[in-house]
Amino acid sequence: MSESLSYASEKSGLPPGSLVHVGEVHEHEHKITLIDYNKSTLTRSTINSIEELLPYRTTDSVTWVIIDGLQDVSIIDAIGRHFDIHALVLEDILNTHQRPKFEEFDDYLYIVIKALSLADDDFNVEYEQVSLLLLDKFVFTFKEKPDALFESLLTRLSNDKSQIRNLGTDYLTYIIMDAIVDEYFALQDSFDELIENVEDELLANPSAQTLNTIQKIKRELIFLRRSVSPMRELLAAIQRSESQLLHDKTKRYFGDIYDHVIRVSEAMESYRDLIAGMLDIYLSSVSNKMNETMKILTVFASIFIPLTFIAGVYGMNFEYMPELKWKWGYPALWCVFIGVSVFLLRFFKKKDWI
Amino acid sequence: MSESLSYASEKSGLPPGSLVHVGEVHEHEHKITLIDYNKSTLTRSTINSIEELLPYRTTDSVTWVIIDGLQDVSIIDAIGRHFDIHALVLEDILNTHQRPKFEEFDDYLYIVIKALSLADDDFNVEYEQVSLLLLDKFVFTFKEKPDALFESLLTRLSNDKSQIRNLGTDYLTYIIMDAIVDEYFALQDSFDELIENVEDELLANPSAQTLNTIQKIKRELIFLRRSVSPMRELLAAIQRSESQLLHDKTKRYFGDIYDHVIRVSEAMESYRDLIAGMLDIYLSSVSNKMNETMKILTVFASIFIPLTFIAGVYGMNFEYMPELKWKWGYPALWCVFIGVSVFLLRFFKKKDWI
Amino acid sequence: MSESLSYASEKSGLPPGSLVHVGEVHEHEHKITLIDYNKSTLTRSTINSIEELLPYRTTDSVTWVIIDGLQDVSIIDAIGRHFDIHALVLEDILNTHQRPKFEEFDDYLYIVIKALSLADDDFNVEYEQVSLLLLDKFVFTFKEKPDALFESLLTRLSNDKSQIRNLGTDYLTYIIMDAIVDEYFALQDSFDELIENVEDELLANPSAQTLNTIQKIKRELIFLRRSVSPMRELLAAIQRSESQLLHDKTKRYFGDIYDHVIRVSEAMESYRDLIAGMLDIYLSSVSNKMNETMKILTVFASIFIPLTFIAGVYGMNFEYMPELKWKWGYPALWCVFIGVSVFLLRFFKKKDWI
Amino acid sequence: MSESLSYASEKSGLPPGSLVHVGEVHEHEHKITLIDYNKSTLTRSTINSIEELLPYRTTDSVTWVIIDGLQDVSIIDAIGRHFDIHALVLEDILNTHQRPKFEEFDDYLYIVIKALSLADDDFNVEYEQVSLLLLDKFVFTFKEKPDALFESLLTRLSNDKSQIRNLGTDYLTYIIMDAIVDEYFALQDSFDELIENVEDELLANPSAQTLNTIQKIKRELIFLRRSVSPMRELLAAIQRSESQLLHDKTKRYFGDIYDHVIRVSEAMESYRDLIAGMLDIYLSSVSNKMNETMKILTVFASIFIPLTFIAGVYGMNFEYMPELKWKWGYPALWCVFIGVSVFLLRFFKKKDWI
Amino acid sequence: MSESLSYASEKSGLPPGSLVHVGEVHEHEHKITLIDYNKSTLTRSTINSIEELLPYRTTDSVTWVIIDGLQDVSIIDAIGRHFDIHALVLEDILNTHQRPKFEEFDDYLYIVIKALSLADDDFNVEYEQVSLLLLDKFVFTFKEKPDALFESLLTRLSNDKSQIRNLGTDYLTYIIMDAIVDEYFALQDSFDELIENVEDELLANPSAQTLNTIQKIKRELIFLRRSVSPMRELLAAIQRSESQLLHDKTKRYFGDIYDHVIRVSEAMESYRDLIAGMLDIYLSSVSNKMNETMKILTVFASIFIPLTFIAGVYGMNFEYMPELKWKWGYPALWCVFIGVSVFLLRFFKKKDWI
Repeated sequence: MSESLSYASEKSGLPPGSLVHVGEVHEHEHKITLIDYNKSTLTRSTINSIEELLPYRTTDSVTWVIIDGLQDVSIIDAIGRHFDIHALVLEDILNTHQRPKFEEFDDYLYIVIKALSLADDDFNVEYEQVSLLLLDKFVFTFKEKPDALFESLLTRLSNDKSQIRNLGTDYLTYIIMDAIVDEYFALQDSFDELIENVEDELLANPSAQTLNTIQKIKRELIFLRRSVSPMRELLAAIQRSESQLLHDKTKRYFGDIYDHVIRVSEAMESYRDLIAGMLDIYLSSVSNKMNETMKILTVFASIFIPLTFIAGVYGMNFEYMPELKWKWGYPALWCVFIGVSVFLLRFFKKKDWI
Repeated sequence: MSESLSYASEKSGLPPGSLVHVGEVHEHEHKITLIDYNKSTLTRSTINSIEELLPYRTTDSVTWVIIDGLQDVSIIDAIGRHFDIHALVLEDILNTHQRPKFEEFDDYLYIVIKALSLADDDFNVEYEQVSLLLLDKFVFTFKEKPDALFESLLTRLSNDKSQIRNLGTDYLTYIIMDAIVDEYFALQDSFDELIENVEDELLANPSAQTLNTIQKIKRELIFLRRSVSPMRELLAAIQRSESQLLHDKTKRYFGDIYDHVIRVSEAMESYRDLIAGMLDIYLSSVSNKMNETMKILTVFASIFIPLTFIAGVYGMNFEYMPELKWKWGYPALWCVFIGVSVFLLRFFKKKDWI
Repeated sequence: MSESLSYASEKSGLPPGSLVHVGEVHEHEHKITLIDYNKSTLTRSTINSIEELLPYRTTDSVTWVIIDGLQDVSIIDAIGRHFDIHALVLEDILNTHQRPKFEEFDDYLYIVIKALSLADDDFNVEYEQVSLLLLDKFVFTFKEKPDALFESLLTRLSNDKSQIRNLGTDYLTYIIMDAIVDEYFALQDSFDELIENVEDELLANPSAQTLNTIQKIKRELIFLRRSVSPMRELLAAIQRSESQLLHDKTKRYFGDIYDHVIRVSEAMESYRDLIAGMLDIYLSSVSNKMNETMKILTVFASIFIPLTFIAGVYGMNFEYMPELKWKWGYPALWCVFIGVSVFLLRFFKKKDWI
Repeated sequence: MSESLSYASEKSGLPPGSLVHVGEVHEHEHKITLIDYNKSTLTRSTINSIEELLPYRTTDSVTWVIIDGLQDVSIIDAIGRHFDIHALVLEDILNTHQRPKFEEFDDYLYIVIKALSLADDDFNVEYEQVSLLLLDKFVFTFKEKPDALFESLLTRLSNDKSQIRNLGTDYLTYIIMDAIVDEYFALQDSFDELIENVEDELLANPSAQTLNTIQKIKRELIFLRRSVSPMRELLAAIQRSESQLLHDKTKRYFGDIYDHVIRVSEAMESYRDLIAGMLDIYLSSVSNKMNETMKILTVFASIFIPLTFIAGVYGMNFEYMPELKWKWGYPALWCVFIGVSVFLLRFFKKKDWI
Repeated sequence: MSESLSYASEKSGLPPGSLVHVGEVHEHEHKITLIDYNKSTLTRSTINSIEELLPYRTTDSVTWVIIDGLQDVSIIDAIGRHFDIHALVLEDILNTHQRPKFEEFDDYLYIVIKALSLADDDFNVEYEQVSLLLLDKFVFTFKEKPDALFESLLTRLSNDKSQIRNLGTDYLTYIIMDAIVDEYFALQDSFDELIENVEDELLANPSAQTLNTIQKIKRELIFLRRSVSPMRELLAAIQRSESQLLHDKTKRYFGDIYDHVIRVSEAMESYRDLIAGMLDIYLSSVSNKMNETMKILTVFASIFIPLTFIAGVYGMNFEYMPELKWKWGYPALWCVFIGVSVFLLRFFKKKDWI
């Protein structure tokens, strides 16, 4: 089911601030992963209740909490209570129809972005909403379902003792967002490849299937734009932000993501233009092929029409038709038939009709 | 009758500030509902004249006045007099062709928005203009007709003793606007569903009816945009407002509605793009189907044309046509007929014309 | 003659500041009307020379001077001299190809707007340029020709002793502009009605005439936009203006006109979209009708083609054609004719070609 | 040769600041005209070397130097040296592919605009680049070739002793630019006339020639926009400029040119829309005409097809065909022929196919 | 391979700041060229390691280092270490999918632009990313491959002792960028020429090849825009920059490049419009040609259809057909045949169908 077609109004009628999960329900168990690290040590564990987090509030280490699965509203509620998060933010975390956005609060920052990936079989883009809460010592990430999105990041974090582990929660937020936006390039490459294939198909053998693929790409691009284009605004807002949670040094890194997003976003715009051009080629090539067929058939008919008339003439029953009596009349007429055909074929050829 | 087609010029020639109801006249009685509440108590009553409101001016409670129906100009006039509302605002309340807007005055704020819903039978969007006056202790809402728009809100207000009832008139305004904008998502879902149906129809069996539906959606989107897109500006203006009637804390809530409006508004833009793509598919599929038919008919004719010519040849009356005398001439000719047909069918098939 | 097609270059080659009437010449006499009023009294008279105005410069009353007809350059020149108006303003008043605009000077404000109305017979929009000079005690309005544009306004001014007559020249300017912009709504209603008619015609019986009407509306909208869309900018500029000639209280009234102009302007944009959609429907319906006709004719021909072939076969003159000798050959063949026709009709019907 | 198609890269590889004439080479002699005037006197002379200008540097009069023809680079070089003009400005003066622009320097202002005119025979817009240098006591104008562009201006300057001659170099610059922009209106009128003609042609008798004209206008508009639309920005920059060379009083005059440019520019936009509409009408009318022809021919054929079948039936050689023996068989069949024709004609007429 | 179709995601999954070459791999050796100059002397040499640069850090001369080829990551790494360049900048230098951009750091400026050229054979635009680092005494340029891009610049630098060699690294940066942007004009000229050829082809003999060329140009323009349009923003940012590495005097030179970029960019926009117009002409001319053919063939058939009917009539075997007995029946019928043909030809001609 396409993201855009799930039910945006599920919550209509509820009071604002009600914690209800809105969006596609994934059948997975929810899971809370805790990563706590400083320059020297890193621990990774799976926890069951938010209360297990509370001791980390007094340590100096950076604590990253990954919540996979949003069905259990009580988890979100507990985070809200213990870390003093605004009710509207909790509501937004649970509603997976958010538009990418960045919101500043005194003690924390709230970021929503979309992780994009390709479904295996057909050319369907899958959207996963990732919410980030950036606190002084904590980073919370909320994902719709458990998947491998952060695996390579976690490996890197375990191995690499240098830069990442020295820096604070804002840098962690940066590498998380960078990992997500990097996936956009993978998507872009898939689009590149697909569009190249469709272009080859268009030149070689355009079919109704080609048209469907073109329309499908067009459709996906319409929805993609809704997830990608607000990212520019989001990252510009992060760079402009005066929040003390973001260090000036880290902001330049967000500037790097900003560049990536603009590149992806401009590529998407180019694809739209390319697709429009391909649609034109397709329609024109289909119509040309059709016209060619009709023209040749019409030429074919046009050659037989005068021949049939001549045969009709000599099928008339007039008593005085001298040609009918001639000995060589019949063979002569065959010569006429052949002569007329050859003449017409040449004439049509000269006119460039066949 | 579509909103856009009622008479915008009804008031032409009247002096500015004349209180005249402009817009569709609803056959309902007008009705004034009064809700007065504070943390502990809530009273709900129906009143007959504005004068009954005056005692509430000196209490500390929040008073919400719902006016259903705009035919009785004297009510609006009385409110204007007693609460010192600008003549142009009164005029705008009565004219239901307003564009959503927000206006600041020293002692009150004026907000116009459109409540959107779907008529039951056909796919017609119904527009109801809701005007809000936000005073220090009062909120006035003016609706075109009595309907269930605020019912769930009133129930919530009666039951829930916590947040809503603690906060002032600005928070009440927020929940009223939130309730109205929530309905937009219901509308968006209906569009989603309808567009999905039309897409299925397009693939399965496109008909002239499909084209009509596509055009109808397109038309509704044109009008919807006029009601939805000024909402962004309106909510941005509320957030920017320096008015003392709006508390900083409440402004974040209006920011939440702002996000909702942007999401609906972007969805509408996507629908426009989708509809344009669907129109292309429809036209191309209709033209393809037509062309296929014409091609097959032409091929059909092209097979009989040479056969008829041959039959015509042997219908000629030449005295010396040796084939006519042959015993096996007639059956042989049938073989020729069949042979020519088979050859042409194969040839056309090879050429991919049938 | 359409406004856009009169000669914009008539003044080319003349020095800037030359007072020459540029634009359509109306055959009417020019006429100067003087209205002088204060709270208690109002006098209305027709004057012949500008010099008659001079005594009013020292009174406290508001003096409104309406100049109908711009042929007599000496009047404009006299106003320029006596009231110290900039040469470029005088030039602009005389050139009726102006774009709506607002210009501030120390002692006066200059406003150009277009009064729009519908010509009686055909659907032609008529443009009349109205220039306003707003001075401390005077308002000058310059119109291209004498017409009833301000009649209802004058009546109101005579009867109503309250608000209008209390307030100064800026409020008078407001009600003049309001009267002109109110006419835009009348125009909008005519467009609504016309578009509704064309839509009905499109569904019932689209003809070449329908196409012409669509193109005509499209054309009028292109020109209308040039007159209406600068009005937004104009009214925003008036509201932003710091001029002492405009009181803060009156600016809110101009804000009301601003809203009206935006509504008209957005309606015009919607019409453009609607018209584009109607053109699509027209073209698609014409092409469908054409295709249907061709298809049915082709099916008709396709049924007779094999029949004619069979008749041709039995018109052949072979000596040994056993069927020709059979007693029931001829009636049997008629059965074949009918059988083939029925079979083909059913086949074509099944294929959904007829 | 169209302006856009001359060689923009002629200077590639040369160091910046190299003085080389880039652009169309005109076969004319270059010519330097000197006009020196103050309130009382005006002298006009043709000079041969820039050195003759030097004495005027110490007088109080305004000196206008018109350089016609840019082939002689040494002139530009000499002006650069004597009047201390930036190398890049000199380079830009010589390169006639400039975009209209305004540049401020401490001691002078540099303006590039395009003079537009119509070539006599065909509908080709001719572009001449005019560069202006505005100094304290000097105005230099550089034109590509000698022509009558400034003649009427010079006449006016000689005759009129009042305003122009009182004011400084900024006012002179204004009247020069005003003269050039006035020509734009002449061009606009030509477009008006041409478009009106094409519209008439479209209704009366659209031909391939009409399509060519439409495309030609479209093409010219594309190029025109590149010369006209930067003028808005240019004139806005002049009005915003803080340079001491421009007096506040004169800036209002530039505001007048600004209005003119906006009017021309908006007219050009309207033409683009009109042209797009005309292309639609053309294509639809050509396709309609074609379809009508095909339909009537098909109807014509459809009437003869059943008749030919019937004739074929009675040409069959069955031994037992009773009708053939009937005395009135043949005339009766003619009645059938006529009857069928009439019936089909009526049927087709009823179906609205002929 | 088109630039857009190489793999943007090669680096996905790597930590940010990893130095990996991303982009098309060129088979060339890398090469480091060092140019060191002051007013009096200039030395040019090829160096092998970055360490050879270090002595130049203490001289007063300007040092220009050209790195051709980005395969050897260790060079970039060494530059980063010795000159204290931000890790993200090094990463961007190595990734040749950058968007043109300008970044300010305290001690250096970073600029990425695209050098554009035409491949020899077909009409393919080649993109080479050029990165510039502007330090106090050093300018580094990083190119994808060794080519002649800077040759003419180097020659000029060796010969010309005046301006260039007097000025600092910012002026050197300017002339490097100017050299690259000058190539854009060469590209523009090629487009001009190509478009002119296609326009001629369109009028003379449009073929499927013409359509391919049109689509190819359209495609190249889509990609070109992504390289050219960010240049405006880039150069505006340089002009606005407050960096001490850029002198006010040099900024005006960058303003000159800015003008060039706008001109190229506007030309590209015009090409898009022209190409759209050409596509319209192509489609309309192909469809016209097709229609003409079909019409003439149909007219041809329509003439023979009634003749064949008449022949069929006199092939009937009625016993009583008086005409068959007439001596002049047969010649008379030929007259009828000819008469009918002539009449129909005239009729079709009059109807303007042939």
